[in-house]
Amino acid sequence: MSTEVLERARTDNEKDGSKECVVLLSGGIDSTVLMYSLVEDYRVWPLTINYGQRHNKEVLAARNVCEARGQWLLLRWKYLDLSNLRFILPSALTDTSVDVPFGKYTESSMSQTVVPNRNAILLSLAYGYAEGIGARFVAYAPHSEDHFLYRDCRPEFFEKFAEAEEAATGIKLLVPFGRKTKADIITLGKKLNVPFRLCWSCYVGGNVHCGQCSTCIERREAFIKAGVSDPTIYGR
Amino acid sequence: MSTEVLERARTDNEKDGSKECVVLLSGGIDSTVLMYSLVEDYRVWPLTINYGQRHNKEVLAARNVCEARGQWLLLRWKYLDLSNLRFILPSALTDTSVDVPFGKYTESSMSQTVVPNRNAILLSLAYGYAEGIGARFVAYAPHSEDHFLYRDCRPEFFEKFAEAEEAATGIKLLVPFGRKTKADIITLGKKLNVPFRLCWSCYVGGNVHCGQCSTCIERREAFIKAGVSDPTIYGR
Repeated sequence: MSTEVLERARTDNEKDGSKECVVLLSGGIDSTVLMYSLVEDYRVWPLTINYGQRHNKEVLAARNVCEARGQWLLLRWKYLDLSNLRFILPSALTDTSVDVPFGKYTESSMSQTVVPNRNAILLSLAYGYAEGIGARFVAYAPHSEDHFLYRDCRPEFFEKFAEAEEAATGIKLLVPFGRKTKADIITLGKKLNVPFRLCWSCYVGGNVHCGQCSTCIERREAFIKAGVSDPTIYGR
Repeated sequence: MSTEVLERARTDNEKDGSKECVVLLSGGIDSTVLMYSLVEDYRVWPLTINYGQRHNKEVLAARNVCEARGQWLLLRWKYLDLSNLRFILPSALTDTSVDVPFGKYTESSMSQTVVPNRNAILLSLAYGYAEGIGARFVAYAPHSEDHFLYRDCRPEFFEKFAEAEEAATGIKLLVPFGRKTKADIITLGKKLNVPFRLCWSCYVGGNVHCGQCSTCIERREAFIKAGVSDPTIYGR
């Protein structure tokens, strides 16, 4: 993003900061649908953070879903490389010496994919960015099925976190999918013409979605539950 | 830190996680005194994060105060380079095109040294690191005189933030200086033989402390108030 675009953002905000919203965009389905839904009502600033993931498929997906919505959105997209975080945050998602667990999400397989405190880290960065550009909202996309192992996707976490950050920054947190299912999100995305084929979920990061890791299985099942045709190419 | 040391930490923690504490160590006086006070009761893991500061005097100071306390503490010290954060967090502390404000802290001069949402960002990283190594505590060192402009040093912020993070990670936050003055901290540091000459405060980052920026003035006054002799060399 050019300094000029940032400057213009700052000036615009002085007129009307109430519409600026930083959206944490991973490049997966949930955050992409969130972004597509918010652009109707907010001036959206997508922020994608590399926290040391083992592959960069998600980052490319994040870029591509912005471009698909419009060149104006791609211009506002910000990518931040914090891949050094892999040196303090051990996880199967960041450590290539650990195999990605295959099969449905279970407590044991999910625990290997927990990046310690990931959402608090990503959110605090989003708030910092939002404060710098004068935005009044931050949005992220955990949903109700993320909750059972990922403690930082639960309302007990994000409601208190939002209070703390509002005290520090005055910025409000939007979590519109907190009580929705992934199938609900896909149904909404379908209405908004989200290009699901561009969204990346697979933990493995091959040429196509592996179809076997827990997030691929979750993705496939959610399309079936939603009754929406799934454009994803799965390896098997 | 070698993998072996980390592994040993993890194994130790399984025996007794109740004593492990990650300390956010900037290399300034406050966090150094905090660390020196905590090593009496906890197994301390100092964490120093480069968030894009305009100079690296603080990082070197952080290293040196660990070494001064003992080689065992230097081995546990972790440095994390997130200097890319300067691309999303504008401030006089990170942006070399902006001059550091001279003179006493005023609302206007302090506002130029606010790094948006800095404490939430540093804390969330410390919690992530703590969770990864199995520590049960995170400690940081804001004091009561930090409060009037730095909103993320106030109890309204850190008490709620601590609740959110405890829900997400089970880790507790220690903020022992929250209601102390900087002079109180210096008095405590004197008792603990903290090597004040090694601690870095100055925003400018020359060969010696400039003596003119707001944090140099605050440092000098606090030694006088505490009645402790100040070993700092000031430029003027």
